[in-house]
Amino acid sequence: MADQHSAYTLGHKASQVQHHEWRTAENSAGHLLPHLKDAASRNPGLKFLDIGAGSGTITATFAKYMPQGHITATDISDEILQRAASFAEKQGVDNITFQKANIFELPFEDGAFDITHAHQVLVHLDEPVAGIKEMIRVTKKGGILALREADMEHMVIWPELPGVNDFHETLLSTWRASGGHPNGGRQLVSWSLQAGIPRADMTATMGTWCYSQEGDRRVWADSMMERIKHGQMRVKALEMKLRSEQDLDAMAKGWDDWARAEDAMMGLVNGELIIHIR
Amino acid sequence: MADQHSAYTLGHKASQVQHHEWRTAENSAGHLLPHLKDAASRNPGLKFLDIGAGSGTITATFAKYMPQGHITATDISDEILQRAASFAEKQGVDNITFQKANIFELPFEDGAFDITHAHQVLVHLDEPVAGIKEMIRVTKKGGILALREADMEHMVIWPELPGVNDFHETLLSTWRASGGHPNGGRQLVSWSLQAGIPRADMTATMGTWCYSQEGDRRVWADSMMERIKHGQMRVKALEMKLRSEQDLDAMAKGWDDWARAEDAMMGLVNGELIIHIR
Repeated sequence: MADQHSAYTLGHKASQVQHHEWRTAENSAGHLLPHLKDAASRNPGLKFLDIGAGSGTITATFAKYMPQGHITATDISDEILQRAASFAEKQGVDNITFQKANIFELPFEDGAFDITHAHQVLVHLDEPVAGIKEMIRVTKKGGILALREADMEHMVIWPELPGVNDFHETLLSTWRASGGHPNGGRQLVSWSLQAGIPRADMTATMGTWCYSQEGDRRVWADSMMERIKHGQMRVKALEMKLRSEQDLDAMAKGWDDWARAEDAMMGLVNGELIIHIR
Repeated sequence: MADQHSAYTLGHKASQVQHHEWRTAENSAGHLLPHLKDAASRNPGLKFLDIGAGSGTITATFAKYMPQGHITATDISDEILQRAASFAEKQGVDNITFQKANIFELPFEDGAFDITHAHQVLVHLDEPVAGIKEMIRVTKKGGILALREADMEHMVIWPELPGVNDFHETLLSTWRASGGHPNGGRQLVSWSLQAGIPRADMTATMGTWCYSQEGDRRVWADSMMERIKHGQMRVKALEMKLRSEQDLDAMAKGWDDWARAEDAMMGLVNGELIIHIR
């Protein structure tokens, strides 16, 4: 079964790691933090499952809110989990177990976790509803499933640069061709209804990532340039004959120009959902 | 001079009032609140200028953070200011003065205020940079100018309904034809640089408004339906022969369908800027 799914459509590349490491529970999981603090105060030994933990920086910051609890952090890539384990160690965090796992067949008992969290996971799945169902299965009744997924279909960006615009179009085309859902953020409620959750058990919000201060612009632009130069997006765009190498070079230059532009602003919308499991 | 500017391009209509009253400092000015709290603790008698205060609900919530200070709330519409005054009275807030004023010729001395705030004002101006310059003039050195403006060019919305999509296109066309800037949110840094502020004195963020819970969906949809049925957008769309009455009816029905859709989500991005005046 698992092999029929493309579990992370655009692949884990070093290209994305720098941006991923910018992420913390504070800047990327604000919707879950009040619930996590509340749960940890009532049940200090709580069990937390972090699906698709990637480079593990959000996971490590969650761990600090639940020092007596335990986090199981999964990913489909062993390589990235090793990196995550080393990051946690450097942070002095010792209550995380790292375990390779496929979201569609999680190696856990029903109701094994008090809180299950997934961040930027469903947008990369060909069957996001199946992923949600499996996360519901391993979450305790009375527990919480927290989702946060980007909506990349719209990129609120200034100034308007042709290379960056072309990047955005190419990103969407290659993403869709890989079976993912770049407009997943807005579909979180819809997908969760399809997974059988009553609407009354969900609280939906939206958050943003903003890149405008100089350091933030550079981190984001470098991450996009790496995708273009060495990432799966390049392979796919060339393979599909969507764009030429020259086009790709122009996109990379576009991002570099953008990072250098003093007046640059960029915002991405993230859909956020808290589901109370009954 | 003032008459050469269309100071609020789409006009203040009852159609927008219900949605405007949903707004509070907490859900619409989170970028300013920490600065306001800090300033009020150091200088309890601080002077605050709220430009384009509209129905005054954000103003009234600001007032509670600075009970010993004083707010001057302006708008170009006397009618809306009367409403704002009555709202403040009902809230038991008595430290706000309401004063009709044009943003391009503010009737205040240089450096008269510790904090100047404008929310959803610049996107309606034909000369936003001139507006920023005038707000800088009346703000004290060492003070703060706080801006928050929507970016309506992208509407992150689900489900995809033809009436709602057509509304969005029509809104953008009529907005631009009226001299406003529906993609102003992303241009706040650019405009402020043009107004002479060094980039190092600005902190840019982006926030969202999200409508997905049932009550929120209804408030937003009703406000959009009123714009279509009785607002300036209807007048403009018919006057420009952009859309027929039948088209407009289909847009209103689209929003009603959207509000009834259990799986609906919608997000709007707001650009936010804190400027430290030196």
